[in-house]
Parts: sequence; structure tokens; C-alpha cells
Amino acid sequence: MQKSDIGIIGMAVMGQNLALNVENKGFSVSVYNRTGSRTKKFIEERAKDKAITATYSLDDFVKSLKRPRKVLLMIKAGEAVDSFIEKLVPLLAEGDIIIDGGNSHFKDTERRYRKVKGKGLLYLGTGISGGEYGALFGPCIMPGGDIEAYSQLEDIFVKIAAHTEDGPCCSYLGPTSAGHYVKMVHNGIEYAVMQIIAESYHLMRNNLNMEIDEIQKVIQEWNSSELNSYLIEITEDILSKKDDFTGKPLVEMILDKAEQKGTGKWTSQSALDLGVPIPTITSAVDARILSSFKELRVSLSAKLKGETGEEKVEKESFLHHLKNACYASILLSYIQGMHLLFVASGEFGYSLNLSEVARIWKGGCIIRAKVLNLIKDVYTKYPNLSNLLLADEILNVLNERILSLRKVTIQAKKWGTPTLALSSSLNYYDSLRTTVLPANLIQAQRDYFGAHKYERIDKEGSFHTKWKNY
Amino acid sequence: MQKSDIGIIGMAVMGQNLALNVENKGFSVSVYNRTGSRTKKFIEERAKDKAITATYSLDDFVKSLKRPRKVLLMIKAGEAVDSFIEKLVPLLAEGDIIIDGGNSHFKDTERRYRKVKGKGLLYLGTGISGGEYGALFGPCIMPGGDIEAYSQLEDIFVKIAAHTEDGPCCSYLGPTSAGHYVKMVHNGIEYAVMQIIAESYHLMRNNLNMEIDEIQKVIQEWNSSELNSYLIEITEDILSKKDDFTGKPLVEMILDKAEQKGTGKWTSQSALDLGVPIPTITSAVDARILSSFKELRVSLSAKLKGETGEEKVEKESFLHHLKNACYASILLSYIQGMHLLFVASGEFGYSLNLSEVARIWKGGCIIRAKVLNLIKDVYTKYPNLSNLLLADEILNVLNERILSLRKVTIQAKKWGTPTLALSSSLNYYDSLRTTVLPANLIQAQRDYFGAHKYERIDKEGSFHTKWKNY
Repeated sequence: MQKSDIGIIGMAVMGQNLALNVENKGFSVSVYNRTGSRTKKFIEERAKDKAITATYSLDDFVKSLKRPRKVLLMIKAGEAVDSFIEKLVPLLAEGDIIIDGGNSHFKDTERRYRKVKGKGLLYLGTGISGGEYGALFGPCIMPGGDIEAYSQLEDIFVKIAAHTEDGPCCSYLGPTSAGHYVKMVHNGIEYAVMQIIAESYHLMRNNLNMEIDEIQKVIQEWNSSELNSYLIEITEDILSKKDDFTGKPLVEMILDKAEQKGTGKWTSQSALDLGVPIPTITSAVDARILSSFKELRVSLSAKLKGETGEEKVEKESFLHHLKNACYASILLSYIQGMHLLFVASGEFGYSLNLSEVARIWKGGCIIRAKVLNLIKDVYTKYPNLSNLLLADEILNVLNERILSLRKVTIQAKKWGTPTLALSSSLNYYDSLRTTVLPANLIQAQRDYFGAHKYERIDKEGSFHTKWKNY
Repeated sequence: MQKSDIGIIGMAVMGQNLALNVENKGFSVSVYNRTGSRTKKFIEERAKDKAITATYSLDDFVKSLKRPRKVLLMIKAGEAVDSFIEKLVPLLAEGDIIIDGGNSHFKDTERRYRKVKGKGLLYLGTGISGGEYGALFGPCIMPGGDIEAYSQLEDIFVKIAAHTEDGPCCSYLGPTSAGHYVKMVHNGIEYAVMQIIAESYHLMRNNLNMEIDEIQKVIQEWNSSELNSYLIEITEDILSKKDDFTGKPLVEMILDKAEQKGTGKWTSQSALDLGVPIPTITSAVDARILSSFKELRVSLSAKLKGETGEEKVEKESFLHHLKNACYASILLSYIQGMHLLFVASGEFGYSLNLSEVARIWKGGCIIRAKVLNLIKDVYTKYPNLSNLLLADEILNVLNERILSLRKVTIQAKKWGTPTLALSSSLNYYDSLRTTVLPANLIQAQRDYFGAHKYERIDKEGSFHTKWKNY
């Protein structure tokens, strides 16, 4: 029997679509799923007459693979990954490669990397973005771990990845957990951009009282501008969709409780650990959490007092500012995410090439956007930039739009409409342009009650004051 | 030799002051420090002729204690705690008690509790707040863990704690890590309140151009109002203090880079894990992080564009609104922290009595404040309240002040002055009074690219839409 170039474990939709994508690029694939019926159904319905071998035991699965074996796990992040690694290790041989293509926490990947490595195997923690469609037609692939493992996978990965005018959306990112860390931050930025679009939609719908099809036209125009991006594009599609049951715009029939699977939260938690400010991303996570308290909101809505009073705005002018505000806030989300990557890269020894990260994000993934051209170019020009705001190319773009962001958030507060992400973006910008923040008072308070000491503006050293005698 | 009622390990200032406090209440104390010279110095300088026994080996220390032995660790949170537990366990006997009085992470306390318990010993993870002064004259004590251990310690704890008209600021809070969890959230609220005061100070200093002594008078007036609290009180003291070197107000000579020791960050991270919105607390952590990027701020300050243009405000009117805004935002910080405690209590099985928590926070600790009377009374009346906003007594107080919070944050944005905590408080309030948030669009996006499904407003069940054919 002919052996397969790669094996995929996990036949949920992502695993299925990746298998079809790989096969379509001329490679042979073995597939396995814990529940065999799912594999059978996949083969019958989607993979007849393809170079895809169904296997129904891990043993057969492993035996069906060419050496060095390449086993791609496309299963739910968490304990299932450990459990499969546990079962695979005794079946594999030195030099074989395990690839985790799920959304694993980078600390888990770090731990698994060391464990698998200790058994003489190679490990690639690989972020894959693009959803079902991307998996089938070209995702963005973010591998990290053993570079020898990557060189074995490169041919397959590069062929199945999305391609842009800047090349394939796949690049070896760095050692150990670099791939999953970059994917995590990708998702953090995704949360922020989704929230910014949602807030813009909210202001149009609730405060400008625009109908869905009118909003759809605005979003369509945005998508043909500098705001061009996948998330704006799908918003355009979503707003066009009518509900089969009622004939109304489908979006209005959807319950407003946002769910989450954790990667946004992890980004915020890691940024807190590393001391990097990413308030727009964190506020997007908070906004999802707040939305989930629907019952509390409904019971409070009649009781909590609101706005400063009805204020008329000139619609066209507001829409002009809203577009600029949205762009500025989205750019600030990327700036915060990239800053986090810069610090994490140093902290965890990833040696990330941020220009490469921006380049591969240009296609296939959920946060692909025109703005990444600008970001990639800036990092190509200044590879060691700690924060993108230090580049005039970025700064000028923001400066031209910041007044709009300010006007929109002020107006939202007058209307009493929450805009967590837009407000946080402005507060981030305003904090970074402030030479003297009131943190001196905080340092004084800390020294007062906890003797934590403070620095001075005019002398070196750390100082403690006896603020009061007792 | 007479044996001691309790032993304290760690002779930094908190340990010293607690030893003196305990002795002053009529108990005998043994003390030990890793570096013996520190113990010697303490005895010579502060503890002559007192019922305090210096010991210079752990063995002597343990032998000097009455059974069941009570060993209070007042050492740096982290590995040192594990290391001392490791050394103590073989020296102690069944029924002896280890108390960790530091700011340990609640998950570490949980782990240590189980470990110590497994050796036949008892464990009390105990939050202690009040700084140096509180340790000496009456802290707020937040013990959690073995209730049998608490009953052995109660006499000492109650006597050394601060006392208010509502009793001693000490209460057994719940099993395992309940004490350290409550202390962590206490510190999270502390971060928020400090940041709110700092933002108020910033607006007065930089935008109203008030001199420090004029601000001091405003703060003094606040402290005699509903805002009365320890943190406002020490701010008043701080603003009165002149620098010994320059004669200028000392606060202005302090570098504006806020530091942190982690408890605020932990609060945010835990809230993210539990899905509880605490944006005011998290934004206070973010504000400290942002302040720490002083060099970045200085280099960007000349380049980032600012405000909407100079806008005159009527000072007295603004100060009136600022006071209300400050109170509303502080109250919202407590509301968020208590909501987190409510959820954590269910999640971790603490069975917290939130009225008791509010009662013991009334004295001794850093966040003691007049507003806790209101909070305590509300929880006494409605013990199972998930969120304080559900009580009209709280809601009315907020409703009367929310327009001020709105005006102040709008004005701050016009001035281009960052107000992360004030803005987040308003966004929290506005989110919770909004029946329909734009999370429906986010759910549609998630279903579009990830097939994550959504709920509908008109039918039960979860739904997936094929948004576009491919």
C-alpha cells in the first residue's frame, strides 16, 4: 500500500477541509477520528476518489504514513491534545513530527514541545487562521517550534496556504510556542476589530436610526476604502442577509450575547503579565463579557439613567468621522497587538520578524486587511521598532484621524451609548501623548501606605518619605 | 522557659509591626527571620522588655511555641512561602497551624492548603491589609482555610484587628483560598480607587491649572463628605507635604511611573477567567502599565496630536461634577469587585458573606471608606444579590451622579486628557443599561467565519447560517 505524505487527526470541519486542501495540492493524506463514523461519512460525502486514506485505529493511521511521519492534530484545544500525544508517542519513531494545528494556549505548547522533544520527536505548534473557508482554499499558517520539523512541512504548508502578492501566508515564526503566541495575538486583534465594527454599527443603528440596508451600504463603501478587510467584508455580507423565518434582516434576529472561546482573554492575560498596554483588545473582551449579562441588562435598562439629552448631529458629517474613528481605532488595535508581540518575542526568545508576521497576516486569516500593507512596510523599514507609533508613517495616519475618534467617542458618551473599544483606543493614544501622567500621586500613595518607595524627577535613586508621624 | 502564644516568621516591617501589635494585646510572641541580624536589630531597637522571644533557628523557633503551634508567615509571596512550608512541615506536629499572612496568589494558597492538610496540619491563607501602620495599630484581617484553625486564632486576630462601630475588622471568610481571594479583590478595588483619584487630580492640576495647595483643599473637603475614605485622606496628607530638597510640593518631584506588585493584575486575570466585567479595575492596571512607558510617552508627546481645542469651563461647576463623578466611579469599582466576589464564591465554593466582607473592610484596610456602610447595609438586606446595581439603594445614588460622570469624561476627552478609569466606569454603566448591545453582529461574524452558531431572539436553540455559498 502507498503510504501518505501527511496524516490528520480530527475530522471536524477544519480537519476535513484541511485534508481536502492538502490532497488538492497533490499530496496524499491519511485521516483518523476518534469516532470512526465521522471519518466514514467524510470519505463517503466529500472524499471519494481522492488520495485520502481513511483509518480506524491510531495504529493503522501511524502505519499508513511515510517516514518521517507528519501527524497534524486538528482537535479541540485542551486535554484532548495531551491525550493524543500520550497515545501517539509510543507509536512514532525518532524524527517523526507532531503538529498541533489547534488554538492551544502557548504555555501548553511550550510544555508539550519539551515533552515531545524529550522523546526524540519533533513538535510544531501551529496557529491556523481562516475558518472553514480558509482551511479549504488557503489559510494563514503560523508555525513555531522545531525548525527541522518546519523544513519537512514547508512544501505542504506553503502550497496549501493563502497567497498574496507578497508570497505565501506561511512562515516559520520562531522556536517553541512562537506560532501559537502569534496566533493568540492575531485573535486578540480580531476581538478588537470585531468590537470596533460592532460599536460603529451600534451608533449607526441606534443613534443615527439608520436601517440595516443603509448601514450595509456604508460598510460596503468602507470596504472599498482604506478600511478594506475581511471583517468589514463579511459584515457587508451579514447585513445583506435576510432571515428565512421572518424576512427581516437576519442580524436583528440574533441574540446580542457574545460568546468567546478564550484566545482574546488569553491575550489580555498575557499582556498583563508582560506589562504591555493593550486596552482596546482587553475592552473588546470586556464588551463580550458585558453583553453576556443580558438578563441583568434588561432588568437594569429601565432603571439606570442615561444620556445628556437628545442631541442632533449632522448625519453625513458624523459618518465621515465614524469612518475615520473606526480606522484609527483598528490601527491602534494592531499597534497594541504588535507591541505585545515585540515584548513577548524578547521575553520568550521567539526572535519574531514582525514584518514577516504582518506579511503572512495579509491573506487567509481573519484579520487580513489593507492596513497590514502599511504595517509590514514600516517593520521592513524599521525592523526593531518597539511600538509602531514611533514611526512617522503610522503617526501621521493617526494624527489625521484622531480628531474624528475624539468626536465620535464624545458624541457616544453624550448619547449614552457604550463604546468600550473606541474609548480605550483614544485613552491609549491620549496616555501615550502625555508627558506627565498622574502616576506620581499613585507612587506617593503606595509609598505612604506600603513604604514601596518612589523615584524622583531630579535625582537618581529610590526614596521613601515618612508622610506622617505615628 | 515560657512558651509563646504565636510565632511570626519574617521580620520586615509588616512582621515587626504585627509582632508588636500582638504583644501589646497581651500575647507572647516568638520571632524568626532568615537573616538573624534583622531579628537582633528588631529586638534591640523596638522590642526590649516585651514578651517577644527572638529565635535564631527554625528548630528553636518551633520549640518555643505552645501547642497547637501557630506559625504566621510574614514573608514575600512566592517561592519563599513554599520553601518555609517545606522546612516547617517536618518540625510541626498534628494540629499545628501555618498561617500565610502575605499577598499570595489564591491558586498557590489552594495548592498549599491541600499539601499542608495532607500532612495533618492546618492552614489559614490570610489577607492582611493596612500597611505598616495598620499592622501596628489594627489591620483588616481576612482569613480563609481551616475553620478549626481560625477558632484557634480568633482571639488573637480579633484583638489585634482594627475595630469600627460594627465590630472587629476580622471574620472567617470561607474555606481554602477564600481569604486570599477576598484580599486580592480588595487590592483590585484599591487600584481602581487610586486611579480615579489620580485622574481627578490630573484634571484639576493640568486642565483647571490649580496649584497643589488649592487641590489639597478640594480633597480635604471631599474627605469630609460622602467621599470620606482612607485613600482620599492620605491624598490630602500627600498634597500637603513639601519636598525637603526643593521646598516644592513633594508630589510634583515624584516620577510619574506607577509600579505594581501584581494583585491588581491577578484580579483582572481572574475576572477574565470567570467572565465577570470589572473594566474600571482593569483599566486602572492598564493605566499603571501605560505610565511605566515614560520614555515612549516623552518621545511621542511632541508628535501625537491632541485636543479638540481649548475649551473654557466654569471651574466651580466642573469641580462639583468632578466630585460626583469621582464618587460614582468609586462606587462602580466596589460594585465590580463585589460582583467578582459573588461569582468567585459560587465557582470556588467559598460561600462568602458579602455583608461581612463589606463590614470588615470598613476599618484597618486601604479601601476603608464611608461608602462601605451603604454596601454593607444593602448586602444585609439582600444577602444573595449578584450585582449591587440591582438594589435601588445603590442605583439611586448612581443615577443622581451619572450625569456628572458623563460630563467629566466628555470634557476630559475634549481636553485630550486620558481618564481610563472614569471612562471605563461610564462604559460599564452604559453597557448595563443597554437592552440591545451590538453583540448580535459579533455572533453573526463568529458564525460566518467559524461556524460557532448563534441564538435567536424569537426561538430557542442554536442556529448556523450558510452566510455565503462557496
